[in-house]
Amino acid sequence: MITSAGNARVKQVVQWQNKAKERKKDGIFLAEGIKMFEEAPLDSIVEVFISESLEQKADAFYKKKLLQIGYEVVSDEVFAKMSDTQTPQGILTILKRPEYNLDLLLKRENPLFVILENLQDPGNLGTIVRTGEGAGITGVIMSAGTVDIFNPKTIRATMGSIFRVPFLYVEDMADTIQKLHKHGVHTYAAHLAGKTYYRDVSLKEPTAFLIGNEGNGLTKETADMAESYIKIPMEGQVESLNAAVATALLMYEAHRQRH
Amino acid sequence: MITSAGNARVKQVVQWQNKAKERKKDGIFLAEGIKMFEEAPLDSIVEVFISESLEQKADAFYKKKLLQIGYEVVSDEVFAKMSDTQTPQGILTILKRPEYNLDLLLKRENPLFVILENLQDPGNLGTIVRTGEGAGITGVIMSAGTVDIFNPKTIRATMGSIFRVPFLYVEDMADTIQKLHKHGVHTYAAHLAGKTYYRDVSLKEPTAFLIGNEGNGLTKETADMAESYIKIPMEGQVESLNAAVATALLMYEAHRQRH
Repeated sequence: MITSAGNARVKQVVQWQNKAKERKKDGIFLAEGIKMFEEAPLDSIVEVFISESLEQKADAFYKKKLLQIGYEVVSDEVFAKMSDTQTPQGILTILKRPEYNLDLLLKRENPLFVILENLQDPGNLGTIVRTGEGAGITGVIMSAGTVDIFNPKTIRATMGSIFRVPFLYVEDMADTIQKLHKHGVHTYAAHLAGKTYYRDVSLKEPTAFLIGNEGNGLTKETADMAESYIKIPMEGQVESLNAAVATALLMYEAHRQRH
Repeated sequence: MITSAGNARVKQVVQWQNKAKERKKDGIFLAEGIKMFEEAPLDSIVEVFISESLEQKADAFYKKKLLQIGYEVVSDEVFAKMSDTQTPQGILTILKRPEYNLDLLLKRENPLFVILENLQDPGNLGTIVRTGEGAGITGVIMSAGTVDIFNPKTIRATMGSIFRVPFLYVEDMADTIQKLHKHGVHTYAAHLAGKTYYRDVSLKEPTAFLIGNEGNGLTKETADMAESYIKIPMEGQVESLNAAVATALLMYEAHRQRH
């Protein structure tokens, strides 16, 4: 059992928790909690840390998986330092980052993409991934300026969908949108200047929704590349909806039309 | 100008920021930021604090409103202590709490309610109020165990909708649901055991959606009182959606059917 916060592996985990660069350099990400451990794909797990008190009460279901993989026990005090949450459940999984390929995703039947440009809130991103799995999307494509999907807050908000929804960052948005068009994917920019309501376009064909930054929306360059602008009707004096909510409404409208 | 954090009014504001009980006792709530100040109803504003640096650059639009009401300038350092945000905009509005009456709300034409039971996340609640205004709901009814709607995080997440969407806390959920039924309001519980999809019920009549706690859903007692259970279709391995997202999908489905 590790009982010292000075332990080299513990220090490494703390660095990973706090620094996106460190996580990237090592090609890993962290997932906390029992549900995340249970849902983590076996072949992606690099290492598992478990607190002393959780080890004593770990129940049969995930105990089997734990024994299969091997794990490291740490004292509760040390675990609290490794954890990103205020009330840690006592299990932290280190995973290899998955890698997805846009060309392969484009070959899927009737794909449905969400393209995020410079989204900044980690909770919003995680919620979009979670809702995206529910709505049956093919994947999430993000601009380089979008918040780190491996941010612990994002991972938590995905509620496990991070293990199942394909995603990738792209350097060149224009290039990517052109590629989608070439593959017959229709692109719709969620835009306040939209004149067509999202319910009035057919989303049965291959589709991608373009969603911009929480405060500023899409850049002009990106919005200009979309085939059309769409908007969500809003009553009262509401100027815009939360980015995760707006994306959810669009994704579920596509789901409705396709089912 | 107030330059000391020891100033009695400053200390009072800090207490209001941190303690739900203090806010309640004094019948007020706090709203930060320029947008919130601009949208705050004149007759609800009790007091306005503005930082020294914001006062120097306040633009014409809200300067006029500021002069009309009167305001107190505080040094930037003191303002930072009064603020609940990490990068304060420099304006803090103290407001009287609005009071809404369920009987009056029930008299509105074809009402659409959201009933929240023990929702815990302040951001979720604020997002529901914001989306609710967009979807044109009549009001939000909350169980006594629901998070404080005057929590600074909730207020922020409403993006001003807190000034326009009626809301109330109720002590007795069963009583309230019975009252709704008596007034011809149909009640739908968002429930994992639902067999009917939310898109397959008619929401054109007076409607109330019942939404439970993030982790545990609705209590059995409350769910039992609903006329029917409804569910949102979910692909993949998703077990549930974020509470604000699920509520948004329901409210906008009602909007779709009614427009």
